[in-house]
Amino acid sequence: MSRFFSERYDNLTPYTPGEQPQKTGYVKLNTNESPFAASPYAIKAAYTEMKQLELYPDPECAGLRRALADTYNLTPSQVLATNGSDEALYFAFLAFCDEKHPAVFADVTYDFYRVFAELTGTNYRLIPLEGDLTIDPKKFAKAGGTVFLANPNAPTGLALSRDEVEYIIAQNQDNVVVVDEAYVDFGAESCVSLIDKYDNLLVVRTFSKSRSMAGARLGFAMGCDPLINDLNTLRYSTNPYNINRMTMAAGIGALADKDYFYNCLNTICDNRAESKLKLEELGFEVTNSKANFLFAKHPDIGGQELYEKLKQRGVLIRHFEKSRIKDYNRITVGTMGQMNLLVKHISEILEEKHENS
Amino acid sequence: MSRFFSERYDNLTPYTPGEQPQKTGYVKLNTNESPFAASPYAIKAAYTEMKQLELYPDPECAGLRRALADTYNLTPSQVLATNGSDEALYFAFLAFCDEKHPAVFADVTYDFYRVFAELTGTNYRLIPLEGDLTIDPKKFAKAGGTVFLANPNAPTGLALSRDEVEYIIAQNQDNVVVVDEAYVDFGAESCVSLIDKYDNLLVVRTFSKSRSMAGARLGFAMGCDPLINDLNTLRYSTNPYNINRMTMAAGIGALADKDYFYNCLNTICDNRAESKLKLEELGFEVTNSKANFLFAKHPDIGGQELYEKLKQRGVLIRHFEKSRIKDYNRITVGTMGQMNLLVKHISEILEEKHENS
Repeated sequence: MSRFFSERYDNLTPYTPGEQPQKTGYVKLNTNESPFAASPYAIKAAYTEMKQLELYPDPECAGLRRALADTYNLTPSQVLATNGSDEALYFAFLAFCDEKHPAVFADVTYDFYRVFAELTGTNYRLIPLEGDLTIDPKKFAKAGGTVFLANPNAPTGLALSRDEVEYIIAQNQDNVVVVDEAYVDFGAESCVSLIDKYDNLLVVRTFSKSRSMAGARLGFAMGCDPLINDLNTLRYSTNPYNINRMTMAAGIGALADKDYFYNCLNTICDNRAESKLKLEELGFEVTNSKANFLFAKHPDIGGQELYEKLKQRGVLIRHFEKSRIKDYNRITVGTMGQMNLLVKHISEILEEKHENS
Repeated sequence: MSRFFSERYDNLTPYTPGEQPQKTGYVKLNTNESPFAASPYAIKAAYTEMKQLELYPDPECAGLRRALADTYNLTPSQVLATNGSDEALYFAFLAFCDEKHPAVFADVTYDFYRVFAELTGTNYRLIPLEGDLTIDPKKFAKAGGTVFLANPNAPTGLALSRDEVEYIIAQNQDNVVVVDEAYVDFGAESCVSLIDKYDNLLVVRTFSKSRSMAGARLGFAMGCDPLINDLNTLRYSTNPYNINRMTMAAGIGALADKDYFYNCLNTICDNRAESKLKLEELGFEVTNSKANFLFAKHPDIGGQELYEKLKQRGVLIRHFEKSRIKDYNRITVGTMGQMNLLVKHISEILEEKHENS
């Protein structure tokens, strides 16, 4: 820290992203990337755009917003594109949280909500998950602040139904409810169709997971015009050219390639079901994940220990230090080749453990 | 504005970017883009990276930071990569401005400094340029706040010498001095070599101008390790994956292609000199710009009028409403083909004006 750093960050603990090893060779199941390449349409569109790399991108993102609006049955004015969905969430914290509007979110959820609250000096209230790690919608009624709700939740993978999410939105009409649907495509119900009904609903999405574009950095927010206008005011006050040309084009390309999208999704959902069974056969307790990851614990081995032993064997999964979930690991659903390798290594690790005990 | 938008933005006026017409056909001399394509090395590197678009980029930006450090004779720990230089400037406002540290900048300079100050609730003090639009370094001594200094300045194009910038840095050792060198490659003296001498110096650069990569969004900040650490704390608290894979690779490619870089620079500097003479022959007063644009006024036609008449003829230049510079226009230096077309249209406009008067 320099002697110039503002005191306002004295209590800020930045986000810790999952490991991104630069050497290859790992079976990488730790940051919920897709095991499939981006759509060839996306790559072709991005490549074409490189011929104009010397020119600024369209700050209005008109083409991409139109494509998103068409995809989700909205108008372009109900859509904002961002440099990854983290930027959309950050703008939402800046726009809708202040002294009068604290943030409210689950005690176990995407850790960036806490970071954004600390960064922006927003007070926040944590609502504990139930014993089985589910969310009780009733506890989010009259939350008394801007609600941040990941659905499906991370890292549990558990989802609320659309009706349950609507209940939360309806019960908080004096505050914005931000529904973070980063993982929704993998089997949960989206609440995008509620946007025309509720002026306090903001839905945040990403191209990083279901669209295989984590490396391109593209997220978006959807909501009524006034909410999107507010976020645009912040975008034009921080980074009007937040989306580069290549990513903007890739996004349009990816949206056009619907077959590829659904094929990838179906495969990942099939692999999730198959991998869940295999882990359960090994004695794991696995949540009913609607995301592209599994959240699992084993009675015979701690989360940290399993993470470390798998890493020694070249398999990366994600472990969180948080006390409530320290027995668990989050495992990205990859190809069945990757998942079978994971299962093989875990069986061996468990066997070694039994031999030594 | 929604009913939820925080009151803290009541006095915020967002930045207005230059027009980015989505229809082609304009001679576009309004946003200081390069008339040359990005280096073929940059494009090739970005294309190669598309094969891994499903994987997150390296949040450490290790390869790019190493290439930047090699280019500027620094260590990677003295470099931070950002989503355009606007993001670096924003992080600097967040990090180094607060109630105790107001911002200080010229009354005529990059308008985003004002926007960042308003957005972050930072008080700011304007230091007037001299009558000839130059900066008097003495007026920036003991500035009493975090200094934001564009060198060369925009939109005047006028530069301070390295010694003058060093005087300002040395005279403000209790505050950070941010030197915004977006345009420095076009003929001004950089103060990067002073980084090891002053712990209060932060230099901000961009790939948008001299590296022909406005469409890729890449900027960077350079300073002593503690300053860069502070900015990284903010980056890891807003958007750890702020640079996408394609842009990161393109940046490394562009830095490797030194011949192309210097050839483009030389051509632009030659075109600037030639265009300046031609405008002076038409009766313009033109500042001694060290940037890739000219800043010019004519006794017979107002800035707004000239801008509008050129736009009608398919030539875009930039006019600023600000009263001190309302007689001027900022004209990007393009190819000589573009500049000759500009000069031809201006002669015709002036001729029409003389005929009608």
